[in-house]
Amino acid sequence: MAKPIYLDYQSAKPVDPRVIDAMFPYYWEKFGNPSSLHKVGDIATEVLDQGRETIAGFIGAEKNELIFTSGATESNNLALIGYAMRNKNKGNQIIVSEVEHISILNIAKFLEKQGFSVSYVPVDQYGRVILKKFEERITPQTILISIGFANNEIGTIQPIEAIGEIARKQKIAFHTDAVAAEGLVPIDVNRCNIDLMTLSSNDIYGPKGLGALYVRKGLSINPLIIGGGQERGLRSGSENIPAIVGMKRAVEIMKQEMNKEVIQFSAFRDFLIKNVLKKVPDSHLNGHPTERLPNNAHFRFAGIEGESILLSFKDLDISVSTGSACSSKTLEASHTLIACGLIHEEAHGSLELTMGRWNTQAEIDRVVEVLPGIVERLRKLSPIYKKKKEVQQ
Amino acid sequence: MAKPIYLDYQSAKPVDPRVIDAMFPYYWEKFGNPSSLHKVGDIATEVLDQGRETIAGFIGAEKNELIFTSGATESNNLALIGYAMRNKNKGNQIIVSEVEHISILNIAKFLEKQGFSVSYVPVDQYGRVILKKFEERITPQTILISIGFANNEIGTIQPIEAIGEIARKQKIAFHTDAVAAEGLVPIDVNRCNIDLMTLSSNDIYGPKGLGALYVRKGLSINPLIIGGGQERGLRSGSENIPAIVGMKRAVEIMKQEMNKEVIQFSAFRDFLIKNVLKKVPDSHLNGHPTERLPNNAHFRFAGIEGESILLSFKDLDISVSTGSACSSKTLEASHTLIACGLIHEEAHGSLELTMGRWNTQAEIDRVVEVLPGIVERLRKLSPIYKKKKEVQQ
Repeated sequence: MAKPIYLDYQSAKPVDPRVIDAMFPYYWEKFGNPSSLHKVGDIATEVLDQGRETIAGFIGAEKNELIFTSGATESNNLALIGYAMRNKNKGNQIIVSEVEHISILNIAKFLEKQGFSVSYVPVDQYGRVILKKFEERITPQTILISIGFANNEIGTIQPIEAIGEIARKQKIAFHTDAVAAEGLVPIDVNRCNIDLMTLSSNDIYGPKGLGALYVRKGLSINPLIIGGGQERGLRSGSENIPAIVGMKRAVEIMKQEMNKEVIQFSAFRDFLIKNVLKKVPDSHLNGHPTERLPNNAHFRFAGIEGESILLSFKDLDISVSTGSACSSKTLEASHTLIACGLIHEEAHGSLELTMGRWNTQAEIDRVVEVLPGIVERLRKLSPIYKKKKEVQQ
Repeated sequence: MAKPIYLDYQSAKPVDPRVIDAMFPYYWEKFGNPSSLHKVGDIATEVLDQGRETIAGFIGAEKNELIFTSGATESNNLALIGYAMRNKNKGNQIIVSEVEHISILNIAKFLEKQGFSVSYVPVDQYGRVILKKFEERITPQTILISIGFANNEIGTIQPIEAIGEIARKQKIAFHTDAVAAEGLVPIDVNRCNIDLMTLSSNDIYGPKGLGALYVRKGLSINPLIIGGGQERGLRSGSENIPAIVGMKRAVEIMKQEMNKEVIQFSAFRDFLIKNVLKKVPDSHLNGHPTERLPNNAHFRFAGIEGESILLSFKDLDISVSTGSACSSKTLEASHTLIACGLIHEEAHGSLELTMGRWNTQAEIDRVVEVLPGIVERLRKLSPIYKKKKEVQQ
């Protein structure tokens, strides 16, 4: 039996062993609460401060602009609900894109119920926000724009600098969910005029259960979780010190390795795209051909279901995805692919491969080796594909 | 130099090494997302289910009645805000006690701004809810009662069974924050007629950054964090699997050790109370003499500041507290002690000692040995105490 292969790094990542080593002492010896005034508490206060500084520095922010949360979903909630509710006197319109993460879209629905008007900006066939249409959606009532830095399914990177520039010029707060991009694309909140930004620890090989929200100095938001007043009153609850130490270490490692990894992933990605499109008939790349995450290869194969491909890979102990893990169990077609103009049948035949720190060329070779056979076998079982072929002939 | 002593287990607890061992594989080998459909995801789905079952069983609940959160503060927010907002058509009154955790009190203030009327039930001199007054506060508009199982400062255990019985009879939802009591007092949600209950992982020597909310079957609440629909739509965000594995292990250990520990802690507590009251003149026990947590000894010493005592202990590398860590940095007098009828001057002279799994008799002996000298020295420096003594003579 071949060794298991994992190519679903967008869904979950292992914690880097160096991060685990860094966290370890904070479970046992240095377990204090930063609110305590004794020595055990002092240690916690100090590492909380250091963690905040290092992580903020990674995105060009100051340490007092970073709020720790329990993860990306909470950060997205805090950003959108917190900003909208706090600033509703300024206007009632919010702009998001059609290809946002499910959490952003569901928060937008919630805000609609609270009386906000949400405008969903369309994207082009590659999943990129159409800037002209985006600008047209802005009204004097617009108070907040939320557009993800990169798409977590198809890997398309958005024109964040251009969006940020427009937002700043119009004095509208700009939030971006940077979870899919962090560690893969350099991010600077000032260069991109970002006002609110969601980060996740696990997405840079840190522990789960920790995220952060960048909140530009001077911006006011309401808290979502109320209590003892931690995180400047914006996020109460005892700070998760071991996880913060872990995320800090993950950032330090990422700073060293990111450049090298981006080159490595890009090579894997380009190799995958080139070979899959060549070896599998009726195969297509989803997402942008160049403006895409270095670790993302996303295909569709006419006439078959993504889930069947996934199960075939599962039999070979290869972990892949058909799209966002966050909604994979619903079996609905990806809203991202539909927004790109695909019909349901096309959107269902997708395969997402996302690479990470521990993938090897041999693993990529293996995927290229087995994929054509999997697709061919499934197509033989597919009445849809047979019919389609007959029509074409 | 003597070994450091930690007697502030209510503020933060080390993670039991057996829990760390159990969590470890889930950071690296078994790091999957339960929403993924591949093998790595399947492992996560399975342990999520097992964790939920074990932890629910610990409080006499069914596994589908447990929602994982990021901690006790979030659970309290989800319980109160989630229930109140969902059920506001049934009535607009909420009852809490005057000695609730700061998170409950701040959530109550938030709900007042949302149009709810909050009634604060007084307590007796020991911090126990006065049942007669509690019953008087109930109106046809009352939809929710939130009274903590035990007080996190003075250790007083509330008459939870009696409160639950009244709530059930009146068909009012009953929430209890059980964080201070879990692992120290047996808890059964059915025996106590509890409808919503807050649990924390770290308070039973599990990892930080994880909590749970028990939600009785049939009860409807609104989610606080919206997104991919995890936790039956009541708490979105990728599940923190390593932490859930850790909390599960913490429960398993607690089931084995709780009886033994309660006996051990009670012996320490009683020894502390007896000796401190005997050896330190003008010293008093805060909280209930018998209905109190087995690991809690809480004193006040006329004429001196709790913070000065804390700093004197700090010099000896002994970690103690003056009250709730969650508000210790505000330097305000404890609202709990004020509710018990103490004046500000008395409330400020408090010392809280909370014991945990790794305390020894030698450590307790050391506290009894050094405390009288500390108090005596501080009183010599205290103009208030001198004046008081002169008045008495």
